[in-house]
Amino acid sequence: MTNKETEIWIIKASGKRELFAKEKLERSLSKAGASKNVVEKIVSKTIAELEDGMTTEQIYAQAFKELRRTKSAVASRYSLRKAVMAMGPSGFPFEQLLGAIFKSKGYKVEVGGILQGACIDHEVDVIAEKGEQHIFVEAKFHNQLGIKTDLKVALYVQARFQDIKKAHEIRAEKEGRKPHFHEGWLVTNTKLTSKAKEYSECRGQVIIGWDYPKHGNLEEMIIESGLHPLTCLTTISDKQKRGLLEQDVVLCRDLKNNLHILKTLGVVDDKIKEVEEEIDSICKQHTRDSSR
Amino acid sequence: MTNKETEIWIIKASGKRELFAKEKLERSLSKAGASKNVVEKIVSKTIAELEDGMTTEQIYAQAFKELRRTKSAVASRYSLRKAVMAMGPSGFPFEQLLGAIFKSKGYKVEVGGILQGACIDHEVDVIAEKGEQHIFVEAKFHNQLGIKTDLKVALYVQARFQDIKKAHEIRAEKEGRKPHFHEGWLVTNTKLTSKAKEYSECRGQVIIGWDYPKHGNLEEMIIESGLHPLTCLTTISDKQKRGLLEQDVVLCRDLKNNLHILKTLGVVDDKIKEVEEEIDSICKQHTRDSSR
Repeated sequence: MTNKETEIWIIKASGKRELFAKEKLERSLSKAGASKNVVEKIVSKTIAELEDGMTTEQIYAQAFKELRRTKSAVASRYSLRKAVMAMGPSGFPFEQLLGAIFKSKGYKVEVGGILQGACIDHEVDVIAEKGEQHIFVEAKFHNQLGIKTDLKVALYVQARFQDIKKAHEIRAEKEGRKPHFHEGWLVTNTKLTSKAKEYSECRGQVIIGWDYPKHGNLEEMIIESGLHPLTCLTTISDKQKRGLLEQDVVLCRDLKNNLHILKTLGVVDDKIKEVEEEIDSICKQHTRDSSR
Repeated sequence: MTNKETEIWIIKASGKRELFAKEKLERSLSKAGASKNVVEKIVSKTIAELEDGMTTEQIYAQAFKELRRTKSAVASRYSLRKAVMAMGPSGFPFEQLLGAIFKSKGYKVEVGGILQGACIDHEVDVIAEKGEQHIFVEAKFHNQLGIKTDLKVALYVQARFQDIKKAHEIRAEKEGRKPHFHEGWLVTNTKLTSKAKEYSECRGQVIIGWDYPKHGNLEEMIIESGLHPLTCLTTISDKQKRGLLEQDVVLCRDLKNNLHILKTLGVVDDKIKEVEEEIDSICKQHTRDSSR
């Protein structure tokens, strides 16, 4: 990189040629509010794409375009996380979101079912079935930042799963057939403690947090499915959002298919059009930003 | 009973004989503040012990003595429960109390140890060993009334226990010996939900609450061992109690063996004598009342 940058001659606004000066670009980006980390990344990227004879204007335009993209991706990622937290205080809309995600992947889904365990009946937040695969999901929702899902949660999810699995195995044995393939999942919108991750992985328990694991985390699951919670909308009020959640309308998609419900919440026709436009744009926006 | 009471002649203060009138005694006890339930019990007991020729004075004295005993037992039971809750907010003094109870039963005890599980290391609140028996106790402490220890707690205690047990079994197998006999216990000062009880009993997990099971509950464990928390004392202030707990002085017995520590908390000699007297009386009081 250092070699390349010393070799690159660029053209100033005055038309004069000069060697590219990394420090000047760094200073500009930093002044525009980019963090040290972001400055570093953008400068690296810009240098990698430098070509002999480019103008200063072109180089700076490219770097600042990159800065805008980064900022908007960070902002939209942050706003999606806030939107998920705004689905509370009850955990039920979050369970419905997870149910919808599984449904979009071709699973038969039951949200909030009761399953018999070997010792006791269990409420299972999401039961997802596809062929011989049965997934039992414990959904752990929090409407505050800074809370971590810890080892105790990972442990009780595992014990619950074992009790359910045992009951299935007993039944399969009675009926003289092979038991289905069962998986216990823990999905949360919070961060996870390292012990919760370590234990779950050792036990073969799927554990998913907001940004864990690196691939297949909750953020990705939402963005890939395009199933954004309606709490990400800015064209309706918090009160209206709560009103919709109470009527089990949880996702942008649900609202789009059911826009007339807004009338019952006192939203006028013109405003409803705005909401529809936002659903089409903002929710898609998330998808676009994240695919980068 | 009705027959007996119609047959019994008692002697009034005036020396006149009359038939015993149950209603009059009921009214008197009720006026003295006894609940309907308590009135009924005391009247039954009194009638059962009535003898021909007893004086009204004797009968009433006996009934009121019984009322005082009942009230004081209820009061002291309530105050012991409050004393245990006052051991908080941290759960550590409660763990030490449990440790002391196990020690008094001849166990080798470690409070707050780390044990290796098959997947992960676990903090175990109390580890109690006697011969081949290893007990791993999860102590669940709350400093508020009205909280129940629920199924999730029973589940995570079981999963933790299984992970620890598995590690022991693996080690025993490697060393070519039979594994020890392990037990997972959940001990709490709260009430328990019926699901927590049902699951634990089905899994063979010992579960102990304030008044569960009927025998061997936490209240009984404390009273039988005579290991009352120093928070049951009335001769020292809440601040002094906190000061003692912070220095790991937790039980009346610990304080009795270490009375000079009160000097460091600014308690004068005369007062220390009072504290000692209270330790000798109030804490014994609990034991006496409960043995009824």
